[in-house]
Amino acid sequence: MTISNAAPGKDVSAEDLVSKFPLAAKKSPDHVTRFSVRGVEFGGPLIPVMAGPNTVENEPMIVETAKAVRDAGGHILRGGAFKPLTFPYRSEKYFEPREQGLEWMAKARDASGLPIITEVMSTETIPAVAAVADILQIGTRNMQNYPLLTAVAKTGKPIMLKRGFGASLRDWLGAAEYILLEGNTQVILCERGVVAPHTHRGSSRFLLDLQVVPAAKEVTHLPVVTDPSHATFWRPWVQPMALASIGAGADGIMIEVHPDPSNAAVDPLQPVDYAEFASMMKAMDAVARAVGRKVLV
Amino acid sequence: MTISNAAPGKDVSAEDLVSKFPLAAKKSPDHVTRFSVRGVEFGGPLIPVMAGPNTVENEPMIVETAKAVRDAGGHILRGGAFKPLTFPYRSEKYFEPREQGLEWMAKARDASGLPIITEVMSTETIPAVAAVADILQIGTRNMQNYPLLTAVAKTGKPIMLKRGFGASLRDWLGAAEYILLEGNTQVILCERGVVAPHTHRGSSRFLLDLQVVPAAKEVTHLPVVTDPSHATFWRPWVQPMALASIGAGADGIMIEVHPDPSNAAVDPLQPVDYAEFASMMKAMDAVARAVGRKVLV
Amino acid sequence: MTISNAAPGKDVSAEDLVSKFPLAAKKSPDHVTRFSVRGVEFGGPLIPVMAGPNTVENEPMIVETAKAVRDAGGHILRGGAFKPLTFPYRSEKYFEPREQGLEWMAKARDASGLPIITEVMSTETIPAVAAVADILQIGTRNMQNYPLLTAVAKTGKPIMLKRGFGASLRDWLGAAEYILLEGNTQVILCERGVVAPHTHRGSSRFLLDLQVVPAAKEVTHLPVVTDPSHATFWRPWVQPMALASIGAGADGIMIEVHPDPSNAAVDPLQPVDYAEFASMMKAMDAVARAVGRKVLV
Amino acid sequence: MTISNAAPGKDVSAEDLVSKFPLAAKKSPDHVTRFSVRGVEFGGPLIPVMAGPNTVENEPMIVETAKAVRDAGGHILRGGAFKPLTFPYRSEKYFEPREQGLEWMAKARDASGLPIITEVMSTETIPAVAAVADILQIGTRNMQNYPLLTAVAKTGKPIMLKRGFGASLRDWLGAAEYILLEGNTQVILCERGVVAPHTHRGSSRFLLDLQVVPAAKEVTHLPVVTDPSHATFWRPWVQPMALASIGAGADGIMIEVHPDPSNAAVDPLQPVDYAEFASMMKAMDAVARAVGRKVLV
Repeated sequence: MTISNAAPGKDVSAEDLVSKFPLAAKKSPDHVTRFSVRGVEFGGPLIPVMAGPNTVENEPMIVETAKAVRDAGGHILRGGAFKPLTFPYRSEKYFEPREQGLEWMAKARDASGLPIITEVMSTETIPAVAAVADILQIGTRNMQNYPLLTAVAKTGKPIMLKRGFGASLRDWLGAAEYILLEGNTQVILCERGVVAPHTHRGSSRFLLDLQVVPAAKEVTHLPVVTDPSHATFWRPWVQPMALASIGAGADGIMIEVHPDPSNAAVDPLQPVDYAEFASMMKAMDAVARAVGRKVLV
Repeated sequence: MTISNAAPGKDVSAEDLVSKFPLAAKKSPDHVTRFSVRGVEFGGPLIPVMAGPNTVENEPMIVETAKAVRDAGGHILRGGAFKPLTFPYRSEKYFEPREQGLEWMAKARDASGLPIITEVMSTETIPAVAAVADILQIGTRNMQNYPLLTAVAKTGKPIMLKRGFGASLRDWLGAAEYILLEGNTQVILCERGVVAPHTHRGSSRFLLDLQVVPAAKEVTHLPVVTDPSHATFWRPWVQPMALASIGAGADGIMIEVHPDPSNAAVDPLQPVDYAEFASMMKAMDAVARAVGRKVLV
Repeated sequence: MTISNAAPGKDVSAEDLVSKFPLAAKKSPDHVTRFSVRGVEFGGPLIPVMAGPNTVENEPMIVETAKAVRDAGGHILRGGAFKPLTFPYRSEKYFEPREQGLEWMAKARDASGLPIITEVMSTETIPAVAAVADILQIGTRNMQNYPLLTAVAKTGKPIMLKRGFGASLRDWLGAAEYILLEGNTQVILCERGVVAPHTHRGSSRFLLDLQVVPAAKEVTHLPVVTDPSHATFWRPWVQPMALASIGAGADGIMIEVHPDPSNAAVDPLQPVDYAEFASMMKAMDAVARAVGRKVLV
Repeated sequence: MTISNAAPGKDVSAEDLVSKFPLAAKKSPDHVTRFSVRGVEFGGPLIPVMAGPNTVENEPMIVETAKAVRDAGGHILRGGAFKPLTFPYRSEKYFEPREQGLEWMAKARDASGLPIITEVMSTETIPAVAAVADILQIGTRNMQNYPLLTAVAKTGKPIMLKRGFGASLRDWLGAAEYILLEGNTQVILCERGVVAPHTHRGSSRFLLDLQVVPAAKEVTHLPVVTDPSHATFWRPWVQPMALASIGAGADGIMIEVHPDPSNAAVDPLQPVDYAEFASMMKAMDAVARAVGRKVLV
């Protein structure tokens, strides 16, 4: 009738840090990883903002958005070319641009000067994505797709690893360790909302878990960013949760920006428009400076 | 085989705001309730900080803590006299001071000039608690103890209603409505951590839900505060989550402060000491000012 | 940077069983508490079925339902007189019968011969409820209302303690210990659904946690029953989850039965009608006999 | 301030059944898919039991286990050759047998006559796995690895799709639809435990969600099975949750069986030994017959 309190599947133990995450583990309190992506530094005083649309809808749209993001002070352009959709059916509007989307992203980079981040969903498409993207994103559904992690790590490109929406911190660090083990040290952890009993709107599936920010930074040297747009799925909550993220210690923020949110091809409830984004950048910079960092340079 | 999407038990609908929370519901976007407790205003630019020990251990301890809280700029003294413990057995150290604790709190108020907040657990003890406390706290376990809510409302004192750790926003507003219905309009909502699949430490039972801050403020005019100490149960996370709370829009912060945390009678992992508290006050003030509010006056 | 795995708030440890739940703890693998309520035994081979309406709507309705429950082989009549509603406003239909409901319950007992179980919500109403009820129910919202637990225990009547919808097994046993400490050994634990990320219908707030049945029976000698009606809030799932409960080892089942479910004053989606109940009793008896127990006598 | 109750990400709506899961959706109340795997029928009166070790440790071990499973009345042999481990480091004991494991599984099938089920983790290894396995398993971490789902569907082999441990019913059916869209109609849904606030042991990460069994069977014609071993991670709870699964309406059960559980290479707390398995088969058969089905033939 002895009941163990051991929680091997739930918590990160000191032993785990040695045996299971030797590469992801923090070696001393001030151990942080810093690296730059085309001049944008992660892990330092700057809190880079990655912004752009959910889906790259067409070339003019992404080029225009890239310039608007840049003009507002954004650092990196985000945009989806390969999109994991929960159902196999697409509408004409809700399409997946794939290789063409990558080309449009490249055009937007040329036009704006911003580095770009986009998702990679399969080992087959890694070469095409890696040829264009400055940061490769692993989406929440693929966080524990270990063959994909290993293959993407081998590109040598920076990787942003989104947390699985049901994953523990321990699961997440385990996934990061797969990437680090390939010798790729440029890994960014991204909290993007988790399943929870209450999210406060029926249309909001997830709860942005900000407690994981100090929890992760306590045990790993990797930068930790958040994505309040996908987490909340509700425009009015994006700015408060972005500011909260910076208060919690986030090392970067991802924001969904769309030229015309109500006509977005995907998830019209969550993106902000250009003016809202510009205003949010100033608000984020103010909080960043209050915690000794900065958003605007 | 028709499957309804209606979620009466989960979300706050526009209809709820009319029929179920007519008193708690926001009537316009800028509708906020403001009221003062002995000169400390809730709902305005100030973000009041309520600080003090989990349990009032003895008179010198609470008097000294009150002065330290005041000297660091704290606004209200917190301290537990009646304590709902998860198990009926107390150790000599982990005792419940009850009426004597109230007397010590009164002494601490006299010595420091700070208003005091303390929990009330039963209708029988309302007169004793209301005779001393400036704000009556309803704890997480009693959020839906409706006879207690109604009785405590009748004192006319300000009430801080902690969210039940499994309660939805809708449940919480329903409980607030019971208080408001008695004509008591001085109600403060306090998020103090919820149950969730992952809390990131085995010793941390709860996840501070900051998404509920903008969600609550979207539908109710009542001030919303957070308690990062009880939520995280882990000192190193308290400051990040306090700063995050302010970023999220919290209207007040409750912080556990103890003269000697490692020897606290209850929950030694969560309180900060005086020096940490003073430092945290400055950090909170900086973030508050970045969002157009203030902590230090 | 040492990260503890200790989980004092989450799991039931062997040490807890000695120091925190000495009365609730199982002393040997075959230690089970058995007691009878007007001839209906809990904790033995019989799996008592407690059935009846959510709310006692009027005298003829409860008398008729009591007879229907008895004729189908049900053992105990349930019905709500004092009802904790999530909002303070009642419609004409959704009323709270209070003392009158208790009188009607007493009439239904006289007419049917069935013992009755009903909820008690406040210390003030304990005498009235205890004068009528054979089992006093503590509802999910009051599981940690310790003054109520202590007061209700002193009646000496059997107590059914519903699990708080966010409560851990440890919280639940702690609450039971408060009752046991008063010398009242007739305690029934009732699982009634918990908050969870997914419940599979927007109108179903809770997930029936059947894993807690073997988990509880591993550490406590108290009988554990389930309430699939309140948990699922959806009639078509009630029978499967009742049969599943018996498979999991439940020592009793509570079922909501209404003469005309679609016109029920409260929660019309969950009750079964008389014919469905009679059919369900046979189905439950078959599964009970497959696990060496019985429902029908 | 209008708050929508729509929950597109959470619930399965009638509209979803038409537009998002036209192939997975039930067309009438008695619409069920039945198909046989080497003579073992899914979706009919038989409740097939898939049993065997977590990891195929060596040839004699899997051959012996296969015979023991068959002799106890088990229908299908399970065993892991390709294993997704949460961390990239393996001990000598906790290794991944890969192609060699497949060979040993094939030997075990020849020796026992049982069909075999094993996991496939990457598109690259599909040919090797499909050459041996009678059912291809998609693990919980790959439930939304859509390129893998599509590729594995094209083999034409039966697919068992484990539910992601954070996935909603809607996510799960969306993943099944990807397989069905390739013309592969032999899909089995497997509930294997989900993340939840309380699992009742620190070493048990998951909660077996039995409410999803009637919920899934209400909207889809596909067979739904459960895996109580991986869900509970605790041997004493496996039989109660297996019996509960059958009560809930499960169309199959997966059980971890090991010749010497305390020396299992992986997860020694969860498997049962041969004698326990034989006893459990009889207990499952009794409950199955009580609900009009059968386990033993």
